[in-house]
Amino acid sequence: MQNLYLIPTLLAPDTHDQVLPPEVVNKVAELNTFFVENIKSARRFISSLKIGKVIDDITFYDLTKDSNYDDILTLMSQLSEDIGVLSEAGCPGVADPGAMAVDCAHQLGMKVHPIVGPSSILLALMGSGFNGQSFAFNGYLPIDKKERAKRIRELEKLSFQHDQTQLFMETPYRNNQMLESIIQSCNPNTKLSVAVDITAPTQVIKTQTVARWKQEKSLDLHKRPAIFSFGR
Amino acid sequence: MQNLYLIPTLLAPDTHDQVLPPEVVNKVAELNTFFVENIKSARRFISSLKIGKVIDDITFYDLTKDSNYDDILTLMSQLSEDIGVLSEAGCPGVADPGAMAVDCAHQLGMKVHPIVGPSSILLALMGSGFNGQSFAFNGYLPIDKKERAKRIRELEKLSFQHDQTQLFMETPYRNNQMLESIIQSCNPNTKLSVAVDITAPTQVIKTQTVARWKQEKSLDLHKRPAIFSFGR
Repeated sequence: MQNLYLIPTLLAPDTHDQVLPPEVVNKVAELNTFFVENIKSARRFISSLKIGKVIDDITFYDLTKDSNYDDILTLMSQLSEDIGVLSEAGCPGVADPGAMAVDCAHQLGMKVHPIVGPSSILLALMGSGFNGQSFAFNGYLPIDKKERAKRIRELEKLSFQHDQTQLFMETPYRNNQMLESIIQSCNPNTKLSVAVDITAPTQVIKTQTVARWKQEKSLDLHKRPAIFSFGR
Repeated sequence: MQNLYLIPTLLAPDTHDQVLPPEVVNKVAELNTFFVENIKSARRFISSLKIGKVIDDITFYDLTKDSNYDDILTLMSQLSEDIGVLSEAGCPGVADPGAMAVDCAHQLGMKVHPIVGPSSILLALMGSGFNGQSFAFNGYLPIDKKERAKRIRELEKLSFQHDQTQLFMETPYRNNQMLESIIQSCNPNTKLSVAVDITAPTQVIKTQTVARWKQEKSLDLHKRPAIFSFGR
């Protein structure tokens, strides 16, 4: 049976030993066909594993948010070898276009194998101290300031009403504005967790009330990847 | 600064090389104080890492669903060394009592470090092919048959209305009844993903319509750990 392997990559440079189980390296060594979010970074990642693989022997296919489902399905149906899926960062199938390849694999009766690796969402949840029995990831919030504030208050309310941890993110260069919006929109007693630079040496994970976040304002989030969450 | 490390364990026996990054082994080797969900399985896990650690030199503290928050906070405030948290299976802080220790650590100003490892929820999401930009984990559903059917329909509706993948689980010995309830309660066109024995050699991840699940009924889920999800 044909196999599809979902292969996680790094979240921060030079963290191979910290975040990748040997299975990741073993599978990359075996496979010669990859669907990738970004060919350049996929090549760089495979080279960084130092397994002596000749990059020119590998066939890469684009799998981006603009990929067409039917095209991917047709292409995958014509391949007979095992396939790897590589995301730009972290776990394929979580907040990236990898899910499309998995959907096609199920359609084609292929065997799907998710491999363990770093997910900023899961690590942020673990590090928050919030309810891990019930949680939701909500992706990016609206860019418009008013709509964003409205959505922030919705998520704050959801976390409280259902005791469900609500995780979300923002484009890194707007992270300071996001924190400011949260401070201005939310109840001072609401607990907010911010996880930045996950798995990097500069990682910070901090959970405290909105009132405390307002007092401190010491954490500069500008251009640093971050996950925000509300919970209790 | 005092550190709290969230250390994942295995989901299936003898899968160390497949699921654990070297960081897990390194941290267990360094630490001598652990808060654990189950002392017996924590000892067994540490022994299985074969790092020559003398188990009797390690101090274990109970951290179960019945632990009292104030007791854990007091206990942690009296310790000066770095602390590890070990769950019975998978990632501490996700669907287990580990979150309480993390909450206390934030209260005490400790530095929190989640370590990468296997999470059945995240692996099931990756393997489902469903939306990974928006998803929710809902823990266990009600035991009562009528209430469970109601909750199943609620989750089916939520997944459709918000295009949010809805994940949930059941006690393994009731998994076949759960699948039966889903087949009976849901729209035949709804897509259901079932992920069983995640990371074990017997792992199966299958996504298809409820109508197809009804036709097949070939997958015996009895006493096999499983994650269910609705999505598209």
